[in-house]
Amino acid sequence: MRIVVDAMGGDRGPEVTVKGCVDASKELDVEIILVGKEEIIKKELDKLEYNGRNISIVNADDVITNEDKPVMAIRRKKNSSMVIGLKMVKDKEGDAFISAGNTGALLTGGLLIVGRIKGIERAALAPVYPTKKGISLLVDAGANADCKPNYLYQFALMGSIYAEKVLGKKNPKIGLVNIGIEEGKGNELTKGAFELLSKSSLINFYGNVEARDIPEGLVDVLVCDGFVGNVILKLTEGLAFSIFSMLKEEFLRTPVTKFGALLLKPGLKNFKNKLDYTEYGGAPLLGVRGGVIKAHGSSDAKAIKNAIKQAKTFVEKDVLKLIEESISDLGGNNDFE
Amino acid sequence: MRIVVDAMGGDRGPEVTVKGCVDASKELDVEIILVGKEEIIKKELDKLEYNGRNISIVNADDVITNEDKPVMAIRRKKNSSMVIGLKMVKDKEGDAFISAGNTGALLTGGLLIVGRIKGIERAALAPVYPTKKGISLLVDAGANADCKPNYLYQFALMGSIYAEKVLGKKNPKIGLVNIGIEEGKGNELTKGAFELLSKSSLINFYGNVEARDIPEGLVDVLVCDGFVGNVILKLTEGLAFSIFSMLKEEFLRTPVTKFGALLLKPGLKNFKNKLDYTEYGGAPLLGVRGGVIKAHGSSDAKAIKNAIKQAKTFVEKDVLKLIEESISDLGGNNDFE
Repeated sequence: MRIVVDAMGGDRGPEVTVKGCVDASKELDVEIILVGKEEIIKKELDKLEYNGRNISIVNADDVITNEDKPVMAIRRKKNSSMVIGLKMVKDKEGDAFISAGNTGALLTGGLLIVGRIKGIERAALAPVYPTKKGISLLVDAGANADCKPNYLYQFALMGSIYAEKVLGKKNPKIGLVNIGIEEGKGNELTKGAFELLSKSSLINFYGNVEARDIPEGLVDVLVCDGFVGNVILKLTEGLAFSIFSMLKEEFLRTPVTKFGALLLKPGLKNFKNKLDYTEYGGAPLLGVRGGVIKAHGSSDAKAIKNAIKQAKTFVEKDVLKLIEESISDLGGNNDFE
Repeated sequence: MRIVVDAMGGDRGPEVTVKGCVDASKELDVEIILVGKEEIIKKELDKLEYNGRNISIVNADDVITNEDKPVMAIRRKKNSSMVIGLKMVKDKEGDAFISAGNTGALLTGGLLIVGRIKGIERAALAPVYPTKKGISLLVDAGANADCKPNYLYQFALMGSIYAEKVLGKKNPKIGLVNIGIEEGKGNELTKGAFELLSKSSLINFYGNVEARDIPEGLVDVLVCDGFVGNVILKLTEGLAFSIFSMLKEEFLRTPVTKFGALLLKPGLKNFKNKLDYTEYGGAPLLGVRGGVIKAHGSSDAKAIKNAIKQAKTFVEKDVLKLIEESISDLGGNNDFE
């Protein structure tokens, strides 16, 4: 199995990416192909005194940055690590591609270079969302700002397969993010999606989930359009950050509170670990004809290592083939259109 | 000035509502009319040994509960405290109506009984959202699950007036909730709304606000469709609750952490107070031809008192008239359709 990794993506640079790959190569039986500026990658490997055989390098002279416009970048930067990596997946020279780089460019490249699975109308980004009970998968987290009910139905199908095979959830419960619990609540999109989801025998549909209950972890897969998914993900990040910084302020107010905070330090760390995204690897782009995984922009070496582990499971469990079969079972979806 | 209060709404019953009204009657120069079961209201007033003159009672035999379907309830329960209260506003027997009862029914009743302001296409629910810097107004928080760009533009206009006159914000900054900061980001709705908002000389448009930055309090008014607004509001409630309960668990783990938590108690209380919605009264239904204010379902006496204070400001500052004028300045909106 060959996992292609974008050495140039991510806010922390090639150092952490290469370190993550070296760590993964020691733990896992995979072949890792690092794509990026050869010179830089070699230097990082040397620093780590790497001498194994299961990491190779494919040179790429160019880099897509976070400032690049996605469509333009994919079209023009033919020699970028991202474009070359995605082409390798398309040409079956790699089984999966991981990048912590420009999200929009990766989504665009996934569609334009790797291409959609036949019958899939839209590919979706599916990160995990930490909850009180563990994790839920959130589909779509931002790839599709405008959706139709059938897209959401396909997100549910793909999310269900991924949650079962990669996240290890048995008979995953699918919830529709909505603004009320009862059937008939919501906007035109969720009303239509509810009908499709509740009729389907291919998924274990739980029903509507109100945003208030998302952190409770009632379901394994949360389905929504990419606008709402993005709001959920970003608001959670922002709130957690803002609550912690406000708490910190209170904790540092006086010597007494500082002492109290000191006593609570292990507990606070425990709590922060629960929210630690680096445990969960990255977010797959579900619906494209290859494994494409978006690692968090601020990924450290551990996050990269876990994304490689996740890509390995994705390939081993044949998630792509299962999605293809499940979509073709729908007869090209036409029963629902 | 006459403020009509639904004595029967709210999860905590008439006891807290009546107490809130009595407290308000001592502090503020207003006439309060309590609508509900006369016998019950009288008993509560007696318990508080109330002997002032500025509270009167209008009897209503029926009650709309949270289990009632909104449209059905408004149509059939003609003798409910909510229907009678809203009719009093329509008939100018009251200047504003406050209820902590069924939100859907109050929205429906606001539209069916009180009616929309001429030129306003949709009325919006506008609660305040606590931020690091203070508060932002969130319009719409759930009245309209499906919106058009022009609705959002009208929400911005109404929100701007309310934020200035009732919340005391000078030249309020209006932000559009979106999934990217740059112009051109978003779904069809936000792209269209951005165009209207950025062209308008009637508001102080800040630009797009990503969900991650909502808790930072970058703007005074957050504009979005009711689906997204509801997700923002409910997710915030759910996350705050869930973070606090997870922290509590860590804090109670050992005698040492318990001691630490004890030292931090005042700080934690400080922090909780910042998030205390009871300070801010309720959420106005902007766009109807009268003051209609939704108090939080779990309102205590203080929240009711503050909602009365808020209703008083709403009436004194002539918010309704200002909205009417600002909409008619648009020439019935037709320049933007």
